[in-house]
Formats: sequence, structure tokens, C-alpha cells
Amino acid sequence: MRKLNDLQTPYLAVDLEIFQRNLEIMQSVRPGSSLRPHVKAFKSTDIAGILKQGGYSGFCCATIKELEGLAANGLGDDLLLANETLNASRLRSLVDHGASVIVAVDSSETIDAAKEGGIRNVLIDVNVGLPRCGCDLEEVQALSAYARRKGLNVQGVMGYEGHLMFTPDRADRREGVDKAMQVLQEAHSITGGDIISAGGTGTFDLNELATEIQAGSFLFMDTRYSSVDLPFEESLTIVSTIISIEKKQRRAVCDAGVKSFATDYGKPKLKDGVIEFYSDEHSTILPTELSDEFAFKVGDVVHLRVPHVDPTIAKHPRLVCLQEGYINGDWKVDLRGW
Amino acid sequence: MRKLNDLQTPYLAVDLEIFQRNLEIMQSVRPGSSLRPHVKAFKSTDIAGILKQGGYSGFCCATIKELEGLAANGLGDDLLLANETLNASRLRSLVDHGASVIVAVDSSETIDAAKEGGIRNVLIDVNVGLPRCGCDLEEVQALSAYARRKGLNVQGVMGYEGHLMFTPDRADRREGVDKAMQVLQEAHSITGGDIISAGGTGTFDLNELATEIQAGSFLFMDTRYSSVDLPFEESLTIVSTIISIEKKQRRAVCDAGVKSFATDYGKPKLKDGVIEFYSDEHSTILPTELSDEFAFKVGDVVHLRVPHVDPTIAKHPRLVCLQEGYINGDWKVDLRGW
Repeated sequence: MRKLNDLQTPYLAVDLEIFQRNLEIMQSVRPGSSLRPHVKAFKSTDIAGILKQGGYSGFCCATIKELEGLAANGLGDDLLLANETLNASRLRSLVDHGASVIVAVDSSETIDAAKEGGIRNVLIDVNVGLPRCGCDLEEVQALSAYARRKGLNVQGVMGYEGHLMFTPDRADRREGVDKAMQVLQEAHSITGGDIISAGGTGTFDLNELATEIQAGSFLFMDTRYSSVDLPFEESLTIVSTIISIEKKQRRAVCDAGVKSFATDYGKPKLKDGVIEFYSDEHSTILPTELSDEFAFKVGDVVHLRVPHVDPTIAKHPRLVCLQEGYINGDWKVDLRGW
Repeated sequence: MRKLNDLQTPYLAVDLEIFQRNLEIMQSVRPGSSLRPHVKAFKSTDIAGILKQGGYSGFCCATIKELEGLAANGLGDDLLLANETLNASRLRSLVDHGASVIVAVDSSETIDAAKEGGIRNVLIDVNVGLPRCGCDLEEVQALSAYARRKGLNVQGVMGYEGHLMFTPDRADRREGVDKAMQVLQEAHSITGGDIISAGGTGTFDLNELATEIQAGSFLFMDTRYSSVDLPFEESLTIVSTIISIEKKQRRAVCDAGVKSFATDYGKPKLKDGVIEFYSDEHSTILPTELSDEFAFKVGDVVHLRVPHVDPTIAKHPRLVCLQEGYINGDWKVDLRGW
């Protein structure tokens, strides 16, 4: 059995037991077509394959590269590009080769692009409160009619309540979701269609309107999601080595920096220390407790808890699988880039 | 000639004219062996090859992967791993195949690792004020003696004054560098050897002690380096497409987010707008001036100025070269990972 420091650090490791437990919790609440796993979280056809075995055959993507990779690996039965694109022509060959592709649209330009790209099915993307993509409710009627005039099949609506994912209190979160979904329900009463696609890890069991939830982070979690009262646990850490000790100042330096982790949700966390300072390939750690026995020595392996799962995984070529403290294979992160 | 929106956005683009001018400025101040370009900034053997043609045959690396890639591409004449490692055994085959490799050490453990890895030449890495790697001045004597007892050739010292790179005022910066280099000079008086390796883009013409400057960012610059009075200009932008417009709130959304740029030095900047909010694959832009004519429309190409060059380049598989506003080839970013 290979040990943690048999591999070059830094690397991302996933605890298989916790990963499996997170998946089972989701399966019990959102089985089969009631979840459309969001591939942007992990960008891995290996993991998408595991989810398919677990009953999930519809996938949600943020990039065309993700759709292309899934289709090329036999995972293209039911794909949603949950994002606006003007390059839908790249999707034509996927459709021609039998993949089922739905595209989100929120403007006449993105509808035109879908049509020109040979796409047949669209969802009208509606802004439900997150300051990002999605049309206003007042535009739904005209866009839906425009798409149908173009010969596109409007299969329903999409509306991501991303501004509510980290609302700490469950009752507050539910109230926010209900309000956001009133907008989406009204939009759906205009478009019709079978699909109401919404939600994420933070609202997976609160969003009662959505016919399918777009969640991916629940498999791994991160320090920000852990601040919310969710039943999932963190399965992902950055494995790093202590490469230097500053004896006088009692600082330890490990070999993971901003090229290994995203910092948009803050610094990674770890046992027995706090990160004082980070740079490209280093983090400088101060011990939490000052005792005579310094908590770290050169060569120690440390686990950094990840602040934001999606952009952190996107920095790594693979996830190393851990089982009972030993390395047991890996999953490739093969859908990075655009 | 290919236009900017002929390629899938987001992508990183480098203005060849500015890149070339930055290189010429550096060549005039720090020609040949007085600069050891830092490959961590760009992680590209294509760019290292251009620098070699420009008179630079010694390279500085932060990871073993960078050294391996340079050596495999005929760029291994004079390599420095300017970082501590316990995995020096990975370097043995490079040395066996004729690459010249120097490794930084700051502890008995890293000296032992260098010895076991078949390394012959080391620099003693000295802490000159940045809270990261490097031994204390008091340890230099013992470490240097220990390395020599092990049969290693101590070629000199290294000390990176990274805490001074962004000191805005040149006189203050010079004063800081002088103080930091007093420590390194004292360390060098203990070790002897031909090499005093230090410095970076922010101190390239202020550090008078260093026999070689470790700079890489000067080729590209970024919004943080632009806050310092340096002669280099920004050559790098993220090319992104406006994919959605929120008409009522007058917001524009582009397709570049934290998977395209690092945020440890703040948000990207752009013409005619400010980034209000970013997520994985999107940035939401508010126009700088509120006029009747909205500054953005769906399909527009925007250039985002990069906040921190090194970890941003590490997110991309290649740099697209721009000449007079058109695409002219690309450079692969082939040294990512570890």
C-alpha cells in the first residue's frame, strides 16, 4: 500500500469513505433524475462515471469542454450547458454523434447561436436574484416566443439561486429559496416544458420547485460550505509537505500555495496551525499553540482543508484516492480548460 | 489573420510588442548571466527558449516539474531549484543526463535529500526578511559546513527579498533592499562561492549585491506590479466575451471567472467597467460611467488586466500571441503541476 508521502506533494486527496457517504446522502434525498450533478465542481469523467453507476445519467456543465469530454466518454445521454454561449457551433458535432444537449439561453443572441449550432433544446435562464446571467422575468415571454419561432424546443426554465447557498440559518435559507423560486415558477408558467432546473449543494433539500437540482460540491465540500448546516462532510484536502522551519520565529513552511488552492473564499485551514502568509508555491504556518514542543518538523505531511472546491480542483491534474489512510488509485481531472 | 473572437474565450493573450520591449529593457540592465529568469512566472519551455535566444541560459525554478521540462527541451545548461525539496531523488536522472542542477537548501534535511538525490551543487538559502523559507544568518556556518562534509559543493547563497517587491517608493525600496542584502552579504562572507542569487522584478535594478537576479514577471507585469514605478508595461490580458446583459440593472457578464484568474492580489481591471462580482466562470461588470449608451453588448470581447501574473498563467494551457490586434501563434504553458 502506498503511503501519503510516496507521491510528490502538493496533491489533492479525496477520502473515499466520506465521498461515498456524501453520495449516499444525496441519493437518499435526490435520486435519479431529481439531481443533475454539476460537473464544473470536479471536471472529471472518472467521477461522472461513478455518478452514472449511482443512478445519475443527466449532467450539468459550465463549459463546452466539459460537455465534449462527457460525450466522448459515453456520458452524453442528457447534457445541460447551464451557461450562456455564443460558440454553440462547437456543440454541433456532439449532437450529430448522438449526444443529447440542452443549452441555457437568456438573450436573442444566445438563442441565435444555439440555432446556428444545431441545438434543438433550450431552457430559458431566468435571473432569480444572483447578479449574474439570466433574463428578467419580463423578458421570458418574448425570449420563449423568439426561441420557438426559430424552431427550438423550449423545455422549461433554469434559475440558479446562488446568492443563497451560504445563508447560514436553514429557515432563512428556505425563505430565500421560496422567494427566488416564486420568480422561476412564474417564468415556468409562461414557458411550460418539463424542466425546472435550479438549486445547488446549499439548497438541495429546500428547493421544492426544481424538477432537478444542479449540485456538485456536496461530494467534496469545503471550508465555506462547512459553515452551513448541511449533512455532507469534507472529503477533500491538499496534501502538502513541511519543507522549511524558521526556528527563531517558530514558523513552518509547506509546499502548497496559490497554485494549489483558490483563495477567493479565504485561506485553507489545518490542524495545529494557521496560515499566516501564502505565495505561489508556499504557505507559512504559525502553530496554534505555543508550547515547547513545536508542532511541525521538516518532512511532515499536512492536510490543508480547501476553502473553495471548484477552482481548487481545477488547478490539479488528478485527485488521489485515500482509503484508510493509504493511497488507492486516482481519478483524472480531465475536463479543465475551455 | 485570425481575430480575437475566432478563439474560444476565455484565454490569456500576450501583446508581442510589449513583451519584446520588456525583454529589451531587462537585457539592457541585466544581460546574460546577470539575470536568471524565473520560470515559475510563465511555466513555458517556448518562452524559456526565447529567453535563451536573448542571451539567458541560466534558469530559476520553483518546482521539480519545471526543471524536468527545461532539461527535456534542451534548456538544462544551468538550472537552479530556488526552493527547498525533500524529493531531490527526482533530479538524479536530469543530472545523469547532463543537466547542470543547483538546489537551494536551508536545513540538514534538505541537504541530506540533495546528497541522496545525486545533486552536487547547492546554495545556502538565507532568510532576508520574507517570512518563508531560508535559514537564519546564525545557521549559515553550520549548514555550510554540514553540506561540505557531505561532499556537496556550496556555490554561494540565495536570499529572496520578496517582502520588498511592491514597496511603492523607489527610495524606500532601495533602503529595504540594502538592509536585506547586508544579511545576505554576511552569509556569503561565511559560505564563499561565486553565486549570490536574489532579487525579482521589483528590485531588478536596485539589488547591487546579487550576482544574478531571479525575475520573471517583468515580461508580463500585472496590476499589482503596475502600482510600482518600474519601466515595464503590462503585456498580458485575459480575453473574455460578454455573454449576458442584465438590462434593468445595467450589468454585463463575461465568461472569465476565478478559474481564469487568481484573486490573491484582487480583482482584474478593465476599460469602461469594474468587476462587481465574480464566480467560477463569470465576472459581473458594472459600467464605469452611467450614460444612455450602455458600454457593453452581448458578443463584445473585453480584455481583463491580470492582478497576479504567476498563478493566473498557471490556470491556462497556453498563451495566445497578439500582434497588431491579430492572433499570431501561441506559446504552450507546459510546465504546470508538480
